[in-house]
Amino acid sequence: MSLLVMGTVALDDIETSRGTRKDLLGGSGAHCAMSASLFAPVHLVGIVGEDFPKRHISLLRSKGVDLTSVEVSGGKTFHWTGAYDARDWNTAVTKQTELGVLQNYVPRITEEQSRAPYVFLANNAPDLQKSILDQVRDPKLIGLDSMNLWIVNMRKSLLKLLKRVDLFVANDREAQMLTGESNLYSAARALRKMGPRFIVIKKGEHGVIFICDEFQFSFPAFPVTRVVDPTGAGDTFAGGLMGYLTRTGRLTKTNFKRACLYATVCASFNVEGFGPSRTAPLTMPDVEDRLKVFLNFI
Amino acid sequence: MSLLVMGTVALDDIETSRGTRKDLLGGSGAHCAMSASLFAPVHLVGIVGEDFPKRHISLLRSKGVDLTSVEVSGGKTFHWTGAYDARDWNTAVTKQTELGVLQNYVPRITEEQSRAPYVFLANNAPDLQKSILDQVRDPKLIGLDSMNLWIVNMRKSLLKLLKRVDLFVANDREAQMLTGESNLYSAARALRKMGPRFIVIKKGEHGVIFICDEFQFSFPAFPVTRVVDPTGAGDTFAGGLMGYLTRTGRLTKTNFKRACLYATVCASFNVEGFGPSRTAPLTMPDVEDRLKVFLNFI
Repeated sequence: MSLLVMGTVALDDIETSRGTRKDLLGGSGAHCAMSASLFAPVHLVGIVGEDFPKRHISLLRSKGVDLTSVEVSGGKTFHWTGAYDARDWNTAVTKQTELGVLQNYVPRITEEQSRAPYVFLANNAPDLQKSILDQVRDPKLIGLDSMNLWIVNMRKSLLKLLKRVDLFVANDREAQMLTGESNLYSAARALRKMGPRFIVIKKGEHGVIFICDEFQFSFPAFPVTRVVDPTGAGDTFAGGLMGYLTRTGRLTKTNFKRACLYATVCASFNVEGFGPSRTAPLTMPDVEDRLKVFLNFI
Repeated sequence: MSLLVMGTVALDDIETSRGTRKDLLGGSGAHCAMSASLFAPVHLVGIVGEDFPKRHISLLRSKGVDLTSVEVSGGKTFHWTGAYDARDWNTAVTKQTELGVLQNYVPRITEEQSRAPYVFLANNAPDLQKSILDQVRDPKLIGLDSMNLWIVNMRKSLLKLLKRVDLFVANDREAQMLTGESNLYSAARALRKMGPRFIVIKKGEHGVIFICDEFQFSFPAFPVTRVVDPTGAGDTFAGGLMGYLTRTGRLTKTNFKRACLYATVCASFNVEGFGPSRTAPLTMPDVEDRLKVFLNFI
């Protein structure tokens, strides 16, 4: 079983109370694919420019991520510059966004990839996400992520997408923004009514809520005391979640819970370093070790 | 085994998005005692004025709370008027505080009460809390709660108290305010260094964190979708926690976790109605039923 991940592949310039880094490997697709690749074969779909460093390509390849559908185009890679205030790690302050080659991107996947049983549309413009939905052939499970920008500016397109996917991953503020419900359980129920059977609400340091018609569960985040850079934590979470579901296949409560536990553990590594510095060298034994600690904590 | 609870006994006027109520039975001591009385015999220590309604006395008595040391004094009962914004149930906006008989109160307990093995100093002025500490004789476990007002205005007195208690219960903002640490695990560790062996951080809708030198754990809150009035939720939590510890006596991880689970369930009832409207009629079977649902959720 394999997972098709479409999302951005970016260069990130990030400033936090722990320091400043430039040209980090970033983007929703890259973070998600790296995390998912711990659990299952991953095909990444995206675009980069001619300026994209070879070391980033090598890193993704070393994680076993299939880059056949990562287009290298003339022009500049999508570049994000952002900062965080240490008192609120949940809010990224965007300083600059250069779309570059993302601007005229039309995603294309291979014949083999169109038959991927698991698909995750990481945060990206809804029209790009739709393009992948139109190309895949009846996958077993389709997951979707989005962000405040699209909720505000592309609400109609996003609502249409929600009717076509099985699982929706949102952070608490996105869930509230999209539904108008401040109570997160009410928001989750409202999202369920918008289409997806499975709703996952990420609450950052406060953990996760999962709801579907048959069951619901929640648990806290891994107790990280030294956050360095939370960029990509949500994508890393989604990668762990979808990767584990791809590997195991069962859409049961036990399995969804296990998937969210692994996802939480993966995300906890992500926030401990800049960009992919902590997730890049991550192995399954590292993940299993921390999962044991986590299971003893919750 | 019995529990001595000292705290305020108040009349509350409360306004939330669900309505307005006047002269509700309130106060940290009253909420805490009602909750704790589900688990163990409780002696309440506090003061009320001549205006204190008999129905509130009857309610406390009907819950089995010993009122021997609740002084009825000439003057007015401590009266709190507050409101909540539905978008932030965690922040009470105080509109008016009339101290009344609380102003010149000197707590006195009986000879029997001074030998209570479990003591909880619910939120109150640090000098009143100290007065009880000076009267009890080597109890097995002393718990303490406080609030932002005392953290800001009576910091030194509060720090002295912290050195004399075993368990400290704080909400997330109080923990951050008292320690200057924004990360809650760092804040909990800093609180541990201030004296108490056991630190409980209440995160409202996001649940609870418990830390001590030997172990730590966390779990989410019960998924309440319709909050009506959160006043006293923290006191109700503390009552459930201390009540369960009083009943069972063991200071083990399993038992502290169980105590926090019961505390969470008790608090979840509290927020569903104005004042004690949901906690007053509560029985252990109600609590056990909801605990089962909760254990299936976490």
